[in-house]
Amino acid sequence: MRLTPRDTTYFDLLAASAQHLVRGASLLAELLGADRPGREKLAEEMHDVEHLADDATHSIMRRLNQTFVTPFDREDISGLASALDDCMDEMDEAADLIVLYKVDALPDRVSEQVQVLQRCAELTAEAMPRLRSMDKLADYWVEVNRLENQADKLHRKLIAQLFDDLASDPVQLMKLKEIVEVLENAADSFEKVANMVETIALKES
Amino acid sequence: MRLTPRDTTYFDLLAASAQHLVRGASLLAELLGADRPGREKLAEEMHDVEHLADDATHSIMRRLNQTFVTPFDREDISGLASALDDCMDEMDEAADLIVLYKVDALPDRVSEQVQVLQRCAELTAEAMPRLRSMDKLADYWVEVNRLENQADKLHRKLIAQLFDDLASDPVQLMKLKEIVEVLENAADSFEKVANMVETIALKES
Amino acid sequence: MRLTPRDTTYFDLLAASAQHLVRGASLLAELLGADRPGREKLAEEMHDVEHLADDATHSIMRRLNQTFVTPFDREDISGLASALDDCMDEMDEAADLIVLYKVDALPDRVSEQVQVLQRCAELTAEAMPRLRSMDKLADYWVEVNRLENQADKLHRKLIAQLFDDLASDPVQLMKLKEIVEVLENAADSFEKVANMVETIALKES
Repeated sequence: MRLTPRDTTYFDLLAASAQHLVRGASLLAELLGADRPGREKLAEEMHDVEHLADDATHSIMRRLNQTFVTPFDREDISGLASALDDCMDEMDEAADLIVLYKVDALPDRVSEQVQVLQRCAELTAEAMPRLRSMDKLADYWVEVNRLENQADKLHRKLIAQLFDDLASDPVQLMKLKEIVEVLENAADSFEKVANMVETIALKES
Repeated sequence: MRLTPRDTTYFDLLAASAQHLVRGASLLAELLGADRPGREKLAEEMHDVEHLADDATHSIMRRLNQTFVTPFDREDISGLASALDDCMDEMDEAADLIVLYKVDALPDRVSEQVQVLQRCAELTAEAMPRLRSMDKLADYWVEVNRLENQADKLHRKLIAQLFDDLASDPVQLMKLKEIVEVLENAADSFEKVANMVETIALKES
Repeated sequence: MRLTPRDTTYFDLLAASAQHLVRGASLLAELLGADRPGREKLAEEMHDVEHLADDATHSIMRRLNQTFVTPFDREDISGLASALDDCMDEMDEAADLIVLYKVDALPDRVSEQVQVLQRCAELTAEAMPRLRSMDKLADYWVEVNRLENQADKLHRKLIAQLFDDLASDPVQLMKLKEIVEVLENAADSFEKVANMVETIALKES
């Protein structure tokens, strides 16, 4: 009653959704190194990827509403799809804010935050197809939890640094603080995806 | 098994809930044009409407917990009720912040934001009774999505404008930015309601 | 079919989870009165308590995924566990921000906010074991709703005061505003727990 050939589409859809995250994280890294016109172009590209990710989420939700047999609990599939979507939304928002706020110089630690997101996205994209066989998923969720912990420490250092460096420029402080927090939210969302995968794997074992 | 006479109460309750949103959005528009004492009075009126909306939400939830037969999926009804409630909460919060922050002049684009909310509220109130027959709902959700898109563009322009105009007044910037963001959240919540209606209609079709 | 001896573990787990909140709220009160090194030590202790609370939540979730018979609706138990967890997270975040932002003087009303949280935590911890018999729970949720109302009024006064007192120090304003808002979120989360308990009690009656 659980696994039928047709059901495997969910794994493909979730894997496709996670691939958009890899592309999004890499656009974000590129955007940090670009000049202002380059950033605008890259933020638009990011927005296109966000639309594709949105479509992928909707495909999963539509399919869930139309089928009775799912490879694992219905709410786990929809939870996973919308958590993947959150990762994308937050990376897109970060790109958007950098352009909207016309921020030029960003502290080096912001690049480190984005590198953590890139690694999280890659690990997530590699893990999604393994949901089919529930194979070697523990490595994935342990590593993403470790990365989120690292992101959290980085985030705290960044916030302290911003308040030190920009004590006399509150407007710039507001801008950078918000960008740094959106990036931290993205890392949290990747961790949420990993925790959901852990829950699913434990149910199935 | 689906539709029984008693079930139609849900449509009445959801429609009543949406009517409070029309009233709330119109109070918000009135508040923008009022002087400070007028605004305090209107914010209190808004708060009364918010209480009525809250009661409406609770009625729906209580009924859901007491009945076995619902006109459509239980979680869709409760999701819809609480999404309608979110629209109200955010409009109430915007009114509250305008009074609490003693903001006098608001940019014209804030009125445009509120006009979009008024239109969203009207469309939502007209759509709720049509859930009964699932009639002409597509027009509604397409239009609300278009309006939310418009609200989003407006929001971005407003944020850019605030950072330009208030670069030397960070405290005023903080106040207006928060108000503008709460209004944008309200538009997002209206879109969420529309998306839920779309999901319900697709399931039923 | 509802109550079996084994199921009572849920009540014990929820009660244990609420006990961590009592400890957390009391650490937060202590932290307010401490000097900077004392605060760092107490924030670390708070973090340990947050970890214990996290483990308690995970135990509940894991058990839910492994058992078929639960003393009341599965989603109500998981909702309650994660709402209790939110209370803890927000108190932990408040402690963290006070240390991270190196805030020295806090307005007296912040202590009042924390006193409300302490009372909420105590009431919640006393109520959890009563879920077993559904006994005298109304007193609890009525009182927590009253306290949240009080917290809300306090919060509004605090925000108005911060904008008045710190009109010329926007950076300090940003710091204190965020701390005060996180404490208000914690009060909201306690109310959410109380409202969930009310819903559960009404279903069972």
